[in-house]
Amino acid sequence: MEIQKGNGVKEIETPNNITIKGMLGLLMANTDAKGKKVISLGIGDPTAYSCFQTTSAAQEAVVDALRSAKFNGYSPTVGLPHTRKAVAEYLSRDLPYKLQDDDVYITAGCTQAIEFAMSILAKPNANILLPRPGFPTYELCAAFRHVVPRYFDLLPEQGWEVDLSAVENLADQNTVAMVVINPGNPCGNVYTYQHLKKIAETAKRLGIIVIADEVYAHLVVGANPFVPMGVFGSVAPVLTLGSMSKRWLVPGWRLGWVVTSDPDGTLKSPMFVERLKKYSDICGAPATFIQAAVPAIFEQQEEVFFKKTINILKQTSDICYQKIKEIHCISCPSKPEGAMAFMVKLNILMMKDISDDNDFCFKLAKEESVIILPGIAVGLKNWIRIMFAVEQSSLEEALERVKSFCQRHSFQQNSFI
Amino acid sequence: MEIQKGNGVKEIETPNNITIKGMLGLLMANTDAKGKKVISLGIGDPTAYSCFQTTSAAQEAVVDALRSAKFNGYSPTVGLPHTRKAVAEYLSRDLPYKLQDDDVYITAGCTQAIEFAMSILAKPNANILLPRPGFPTYELCAAFRHVVPRYFDLLPEQGWEVDLSAVENLADQNTVAMVVINPGNPCGNVYTYQHLKKIAETAKRLGIIVIADEVYAHLVVGANPFVPMGVFGSVAPVLTLGSMSKRWLVPGWRLGWVVTSDPDGTLKSPMFVERLKKYSDICGAPATFIQAAVPAIFEQQEEVFFKKTINILKQTSDICYQKIKEIHCISCPSKPEGAMAFMVKLNILMMKDISDDNDFCFKLAKEESVIILPGIAVGLKNWIRIMFAVEQSSLEEALERVKSFCQRHSFQQNSFI
Repeated sequence: MEIQKGNGVKEIETPNNITIKGMLGLLMANTDAKGKKVISLGIGDPTAYSCFQTTSAAQEAVVDALRSAKFNGYSPTVGLPHTRKAVAEYLSRDLPYKLQDDDVYITAGCTQAIEFAMSILAKPNANILLPRPGFPTYELCAAFRHVVPRYFDLLPEQGWEVDLSAVENLADQNTVAMVVINPGNPCGNVYTYQHLKKIAETAKRLGIIVIADEVYAHLVVGANPFVPMGVFGSVAPVLTLGSMSKRWLVPGWRLGWVVTSDPDGTLKSPMFVERLKKYSDICGAPATFIQAAVPAIFEQQEEVFFKKTINILKQTSDICYQKIKEIHCISCPSKPEGAMAFMVKLNILMMKDISDDNDFCFKLAKEESVIILPGIAVGLKNWIRIMFAVEQSSLEEALERVKSFCQRHSFQQNSFI
Repeated sequence: MEIQKGNGVKEIETPNNITIKGMLGLLMANTDAKGKKVISLGIGDPTAYSCFQTTSAAQEAVVDALRSAKFNGYSPTVGLPHTRKAVAEYLSRDLPYKLQDDDVYITAGCTQAIEFAMSILAKPNANILLPRPGFPTYELCAAFRHVVPRYFDLLPEQGWEVDLSAVENLADQNTVAMVVINPGNPCGNVYTYQHLKKIAETAKRLGIIVIADEVYAHLVVGANPFVPMGVFGSVAPVLTLGSMSKRWLVPGWRLGWVVTSDPDGTLKSPMFVERLKKYSDICGAPATFIQAAVPAIFEQQEEVFFKKTINILKQTSDICYQKIKEIHCISCPSKPEGAMAFMVKLNILMMKDISDDNDFCFKLAKEESVIILPGIAVGLKNWIRIMFAVEQSSLEEALERVKSFCQRHSFQQNSFI
């Protein structure tokens, strides 16, 4: 669509999918200014709570790099050499092979890593396989790059595993990649070694790259350990996306990476590497002094800090899961196993004046000042996404409000009897 | 071009233009490790020299924001509200109207601002008018976005002014914008009020947006004052690109902006604003704590610091200009007036064994360990781009080496007599 404005400036089409931030903004605007204090279970950024603060060691490593005055200039656009090395070594700890420093491209957070991966793979008529529910930034990037998204389902009754037969059916010669988010946002899944292996084998058969979004790497609260997709990099080539944002609780530092987890070098062809480097040139890189602090931060091995975060997330995910059991018109197919959010199903038939997930979330925001993302924003109608990386008392208060909201808006349980 | 690799991974075409950083890397690799100490007159990042250090006040503003622990989380993707406000106020000082806070979109440096502008305007069959010589990041972004670049000349004998008749001839219904870099990189021009007005009037006639790259704003060493293109925002809508990088000598902080300098609101249509916001969502924003420091930094009004930088640049640009006059096979059409670089013409006919600018620069790197960008990298064959934001003694030493190189490789002046 093109509109000629009065002075001749040409307008162009905008992708019409809503972003998570856009939706949360609308919900926030729908809260009652005179109502209760707003509690957001909306966004994956828990840093507002004092229990989710990064370490002072990490912070001071950045201060030291800044004050050295050695890192005010440009870094190479692929990242500082010792930052690439530190990321390669950090990720190699969990791999059966050693990543090379030049496998690593430093990006401004995982958002830019997504943008990077999508732009690198874009070409005329390309399509990409995305999970449903998923993370809408992929769709938005795809829309801006004219890459067509095709959706495969995640299966709620099977721990949100990938519907691999759907993947096989969707792919064709123009499919460039499939996206796997593990630990999962929005579902809170943590995939088993076996399932990840099957995904890699499927990608191999289809001749496509796996984009492994591991921004929530190591944030595991259930029984399955975190296995990086790169473990299967010799089955199918993997582009690993990650960042410091979640594990170090510093999403605002914008320090992420794209990594070719690809021991057989399929993604190391001169042409592909040239494309990665050139795209780095137009991305720039994150702030040089923040990059410079990464090796010191990674060396610190903050096990106590990591465990503290995991323990809090275990508690808050438990609270969520137990509380939701008490609310009879919403349900959760499985306990969250990792990341910071999970999906909860609305039983719309049990609600007397709620038409769908959007309606649920807007009325909840209005009446209870609780912000929860409607599932439609992540591709799943009549579900909601609840973020559990929230300080415990706020979370309990929010869920109590959800409970009373549901009681007010649902038929009484015994009305079915 | 598509290549089917052994395992079926599909490769895709890479833009084949070389980047400045790519070229400088090749030149650096061509220096003699056993030769003289390398001096680079190649890149617009003088922060390696102690005379080009930012202020401790700016640095400490960032330290304070970081240590407050209030800015470790995500910022809105368009930027923190008080950062947008600070940039709007800072730029409004030089405009006949007041920018609104929501005219400002905070980006990761001016590189991302270029990427942002290009992606916002990209659509099928679009073309964009770029200056020649210019800044190759525009071409690279255009290539990744499938926007076709069309080149208009800058006129060396007219202070590198835009060839406006060429602009008129190049534009058609698919032209989305023209790019104006002022103060100019690579030419060192600073355009007059009158010339900028003519550019805006031309853009108005053609119904296109002006992308005003003002990353070197206020870095003026000649007689013409810096006039922001936004002054003519009511003639034609202007997207102003800028950053803290050059004026505050902190390119590594990655703090830039895209601003709709457009008092008539042509770029404020809901559709265009929606597109800007959505693109912000996939860009992310620079580090939140760096953004948070901007208001304090802008309030400090570092006139002494700014004057010191200008004084150094006046001296070093003078040194360059005078020295080049002494070297009979290179010449400069006009004294640099601003920014950090200018273009110097090679008289290839006077050189006995130099075939072109590339040959000149590679041999210079090899024999003298001086890095200078060949003009072809910025679109002008048989010119070279010399960066003068270099500490004085290093600059003098480098130019002395250029002089002896030229003497060795040129016919003696009296051989023409």
